[in-house]
Amino acid sequence: MNQGAKLKIGIVGGTGYTGVELLRLLVQHPNVELTAVTSRSEAGQDVHALYPNLRGHLDLQFSQPDLDNLSQCDLVFFATPNGVAMKLVPGLLQAGVRVVDLAADFRLKDPSLWQQWYGMPHACEDVLEQAVYGLPEMNRSQIAEAKIVANPGCYPTAVQLGFLPLLERGLIDPMHLIADAKSGVSGAGREAKLGSLLCEASESFKAYGVSGHRHLPEISQGLAEVMGAPVGLTFIPHLTPMIRGIHATLYGRLQGAAADLQALFESRFKDEPFVDVMPAGSAPETRSVKGSNQCRIAVHVPQGGDTVVVLSVIDNLVKGAAGQAIQNMNIMCGLPESAGLNQVALMP
Amino acid sequence: MNQGAKLKIGIVGGTGYTGVELLRLLVQHPNVELTAVTSRSEAGQDVHALYPNLRGHLDLQFSQPDLDNLSQCDLVFFATPNGVAMKLVPGLLQAGVRVVDLAADFRLKDPSLWQQWYGMPHACEDVLEQAVYGLPEMNRSQIAEAKIVANPGCYPTAVQLGFLPLLERGLIDPMHLIADAKSGVSGAGREAKLGSLLCEASESFKAYGVSGHRHLPEISQGLAEVMGAPVGLTFIPHLTPMIRGIHATLYGRLQGAAADLQALFESRFKDEPFVDVMPAGSAPETRSVKGSNQCRIAVHVPQGGDTVVVLSVIDNLVKGAAGQAIQNMNIMCGLPESAGLNQVALMP
Amino acid sequence: MNQGAKLKIGIVGGTGYTGVELLRLLVQHPNVELTAVTSRSEAGQDVHALYPNLRGHLDLQFSQPDLDNLSQCDLVFFATPNGVAMKLVPGLLQAGVRVVDLAADFRLKDPSLWQQWYGMPHACEDVLEQAVYGLPEMNRSQIAEAKIVANPGCYPTAVQLGFLPLLERGLIDPMHLIADAKSGVSGAGREAKLGSLLCEASESFKAYGVSGHRHLPEISQGLAEVMGAPVGLTFIPHLTPMIRGIHATLYGRLQGAAADLQALFESRFKDEPFVDVMPAGSAPETRSVKGSNQCRIAVHVPQGGDTVVVLSVIDNLVKGAAGQAIQNMNIMCGLPESAGLNQVALMP
Amino acid sequence: MNQGAKLKIGIVGGTGYTGVELLRLLVQHPNVELTAVTSRSEAGQDVHALYPNLRGHLDLQFSQPDLDNLSQCDLVFFATPNGVAMKLVPGLLQAGVRVVDLAADFRLKDPSLWQQWYGMPHACEDVLEQAVYGLPEMNRSQIAEAKIVANPGCYPTAVQLGFLPLLERGLIDPMHLIADAKSGVSGAGREAKLGSLLCEASESFKAYGVSGHRHLPEISQGLAEVMGAPVGLTFIPHLTPMIRGIHATLYGRLQGAAADLQALFESRFKDEPFVDVMPAGSAPETRSVKGSNQCRIAVHVPQGGDTVVVLSVIDNLVKGAAGQAIQNMNIMCGLPESAGLNQVALMP
Repeated sequence: MNQGAKLKIGIVGGTGYTGVELLRLLVQHPNVELTAVTSRSEAGQDVHALYPNLRGHLDLQFSQPDLDNLSQCDLVFFATPNGVAMKLVPGLLQAGVRVVDLAADFRLKDPSLWQQWYGMPHACEDVLEQAVYGLPEMNRSQIAEAKIVANPGCYPTAVQLGFLPLLERGLIDPMHLIADAKSGVSGAGREAKLGSLLCEASESFKAYGVSGHRHLPEISQGLAEVMGAPVGLTFIPHLTPMIRGIHATLYGRLQGAAADLQALFESRFKDEPFVDVMPAGSAPETRSVKGSNQCRIAVHVPQGGDTVVVLSVIDNLVKGAAGQAIQNMNIMCGLPESAGLNQVALMP
Repeated sequence: MNQGAKLKIGIVGGTGYTGVELLRLLVQHPNVELTAVTSRSEAGQDVHALYPNLRGHLDLQFSQPDLDNLSQCDLVFFATPNGVAMKLVPGLLQAGVRVVDLAADFRLKDPSLWQQWYGMPHACEDVLEQAVYGLPEMNRSQIAEAKIVANPGCYPTAVQLGFLPLLERGLIDPMHLIADAKSGVSGAGREAKLGSLLCEASESFKAYGVSGHRHLPEISQGLAEVMGAPVGLTFIPHLTPMIRGIHATLYGRLQGAAADLQALFESRFKDEPFVDVMPAGSAPETRSVKGSNQCRIAVHVPQGGDTVVVLSVIDNLVKGAAGQAIQNMNIMCGLPESAGLNQVALMP
Repeated sequence: MNQGAKLKIGIVGGTGYTGVELLRLLVQHPNVELTAVTSRSEAGQDVHALYPNLRGHLDLQFSQPDLDNLSQCDLVFFATPNGVAMKLVPGLLQAGVRVVDLAADFRLKDPSLWQQWYGMPHACEDVLEQAVYGLPEMNRSQIAEAKIVANPGCYPTAVQLGFLPLLERGLIDPMHLIADAKSGVSGAGREAKLGSLLCEASESFKAYGVSGHRHLPEISQGLAEVMGAPVGLTFIPHLTPMIRGIHATLYGRLQGAAADLQALFESRFKDEPFVDVMPAGSAPETRSVKGSNQCRIAVHVPQGGDTVVVLSVIDNLVKGAAGQAIQNMNIMCGLPESAGLNQVALMP
Repeated sequence: MNQGAKLKIGIVGGTGYTGVELLRLLVQHPNVELTAVTSRSEAGQDVHALYPNLRGHLDLQFSQPDLDNLSQCDLVFFATPNGVAMKLVPGLLQAGVRVVDLAADFRLKDPSLWQQWYGMPHACEDVLEQAVYGLPEMNRSQIAEAKIVANPGCYPTAVQLGFLPLLERGLIDPMHLIADAKSGVSGAGREAKLGSLLCEASESFKAYGVSGHRHLPEISQGLAEVMGAPVGLTFIPHLTPMIRGIHATLYGRLQGAAADLQALFESRFKDEPFVDVMPAGSAPETRSVKGSNQCRIAVHVPQGGDTVVVLSVIDNLVKGAAGQAIQNMNIMCGLPESAGLNQVALMP
């Protein structure tokens, strides 16, 4: 693009946590001009009245989601509940607007699988076919060409990045993968739900979705693509008493000849701007990525046994949502991949 | 014992979190009289000056740990750092005083293993031989006869109770057990350590002790005893941003004929006053046991695969320390096993 | 009452936080039999399915609120939203059932003031006249005779107990009282409200209700009764990122001759089982009363100036709600005032 | 300064929370080159080994504090314990290096007052005389000329900014000011202290320093300078269970003719880049400034009485420490005052 010109960006559904996180990052992005932030419920309201952290940074009102208006954008982010984007995206694509969907609408390739896990038929199977799964560390070149990118879920980002080097090299049994994942409460979104109350979720820890979480088929699909064959995965998410952060603890049974796993991980990610392989023996803290787009990873083989343990942390709202979406936007639009994404994590 | 008489009880090392939790429970125990609470650093000080929650419940001063004084007790709890009890216990046993040690001194049967993991030679191997591992659900009858009981660690309690029914029946591969465990910060004790500061440990989540935690050999020893053969265990503890609670997520590979695991767990624990098998499909929250001596357990086989997942929660300071110690005391002294242990968890 | 017989107790509205706290305390009360816990939304459901901390302690189902059924009780607690009790209480009183209302329906003596602050006309002004304000430290003898007791709000309990000794003795200017009060989030109840989400309320602190909180007229009414004249009060409540606890910091301008305030407070409360005046120079922590019915108070005159500062802490769900309600029940029914209320606070 | 050239900056004492916050902000500052970060205890260690959030942002090792080395800097920040800077600053000033001290060494004009509150004689009274108190909203022009700036304490920043407009116009009784202030735990620093443990400080709230906190004379000095006469202040700080944030609730007795306080505050701060007067009726949340250099203020007169209430929030580590220090550096060095300080607060 023209160096001086700025991308015109729209956000559909700007009131949730991924919406406000997009706003936090985009108001500081050097190549972006925010032209529309939509919300049916808040239309007409100053955006900073809902999110006072944006006072002084953004002078824009929520507007009604409107195809004419959004069609003026170069790129539109959907930060809407599942099932909304698939109804609006076809129109936008026809108008020549590129799209990054932060919901699940375009993540599963198989529309019947979508219907099974999300309880509704897919509204635009033809668009689904051309959607690219937006994990840059796997699909960078396809993302660069994509018109519509399905931004990965938060758990799938942390889990896939951790398993990737091992599966690509066939070093673990792909039929018995275990992902024990822990998420902060913001993963449940900005909805008035009992289970997300401070009095219900703080000072406590629990597993949920044990019988089957929607991110399971998404992770399985991604890992199967790496393997060229189905994988077997046990995925247990847990609710953790903190706002932000995902910690995935991954277990695999080693197979084949011994390998230097530390070297393997470092080599696999050495050119990745947003994957940081920690020194041998480390255990990354989620707070080390709070507010930043980094994924920090450590690999261990405890007691020199045959079980490998990978620790992978991200901020679920950044690398697990809004940050990765902007990373995808940068790739799609020919900007430096890190543009607007160099925040240092807030610590403490 | 005489119905009216009360047990004379001493606590050595009453300033830590297990110490104050013993005090909270013992001042309300109907069959107990507290006669000594020792602390070298706080001797002479009112106990309630350190722990104002005890104001009005306990009128006692910390005293110097003194064999003569402690020998007047019927039973003494050690809530001291590792390596203290093993020096004082022989003298107390000779004086006819029974002992429950809440530290690790008498947990590992093999003194060389103790030295390897705790970095000091064992001070009384002969006493070690007669010590009984105080997990009532495994060793109730031996505890009843014991003079010295090694109270289990917090992680080992949650992990062993969860694996027990499966291993006893040979239903899982014992060489590839995985225990992904999460603990509140009180597990690190009441010590002024950087890593336990609110600003370091809240709003974050991390693994630790990945290369080998001291509770690993303790759990392995207990499970091996069940199997009559060594087991293979990967144990990864994690620090969770809350005060109390342990959540163990256990993974095993099913083997042999299919079994009704829900029925198995319910039957195994149906007479246990402090193990509560949750209804099928449940996921216990740690807060449901906050302040109580319960262990709540649920068993799952996600997607009907060959991996069983057990969820086991305790309050690390109660069933994982002080509560279980009192449960052991009750058994040793012929009291009702639940005496003084019927607290309802604080929720919310 | 007959020593052996147990009081038959009903709870209307048992699903909120004050409801479950009543249940936690009542299942351990030696003189009480729970006969009905009502909830329109959960009728038929096991109580312990909603509150797993009660598993093993209570085998009762929620029932529909039903006058016939509740009329079998000796005493009924209302733990309902404001405006519910005033419709049902007249019928219960006619049936000879005594009532403790934990909502606000009977707290304000003046029905027009009620309507102004609660936005609805009062439904039974005649009953309102006979209602006794249930702060035992002010109204013990009237409570003993009462048929209907209005259990004080959480803030009013902490604030009134702190100002009481000073106002009774005329030691401060009653027209310029300041109460800066901080509450844990459970004060907002178990409702799915955005502002009570962990992601909204943790890691943050704010004032609310600055222009006028409903507890303001309640506190003013109580303090005016002490003075026999109106008082002037600035009351600013704040939302604090924790589950339980109220901390009231009270400021008054000293007037008249100098007095030994420490001695005054100790003497005023020396026979009160649930008010604990801390040693001079202390600052009580809210956690020192977590789960207990105590109010802990300290009094200071910083820099020997003319401003007195009183620090007053309670657990908003216990002394600020369910515990005080049971204290009132004990007084009304001739039981020992502390029966069932000797819990030691959970610390840490 | 030369547009292209970058300021050479040193930090003495870079291991504490204000140190790492300086680093977070300075590695992103467009006009700054970090040349030295000193720490006696960590010398030789990579800075990012201690603070992994800096991995990829800073390639520097801690060095010994050394006058020769530091003399190469244009400006040096002291983020040391109280009493360290006053020993090193004279040498640096002689070498022509400007200094911003984030500790208390140069905050109190009167060296005997310093000795009284900090327990040691002042080491360089002559330098103290030329030090400028670095609250830009009061002393901007003097800061621009200063060689040594005393960066204000966190409480004093929030409290003085809130009282300023009222005192400047003589609208409140200056002899009876009340500041009820609440701070997150990071205000206590990165020291292994019992009281700062998660298990001691979370799920609780307490006042501290009631008889006299070191920020009291600092605030009094600043407000007295505004008035040209002594003020009377009751200042009660409280420990709040969160990492970052200060909320000051200020109370004053109105005097003189009625004034439009909202308009007064807006007008007083309309040109201030880092003071944001909220709309009438607002209550700012501390999280709205988390990680940002803003102070958000609201002014109220509850019930139209004679007591004014000001709510003032800052991030204690940013506007209350490192951010304000950089704001001072910008002013001292002729940079745009907001350079490097435009972070949007992290919310949620």
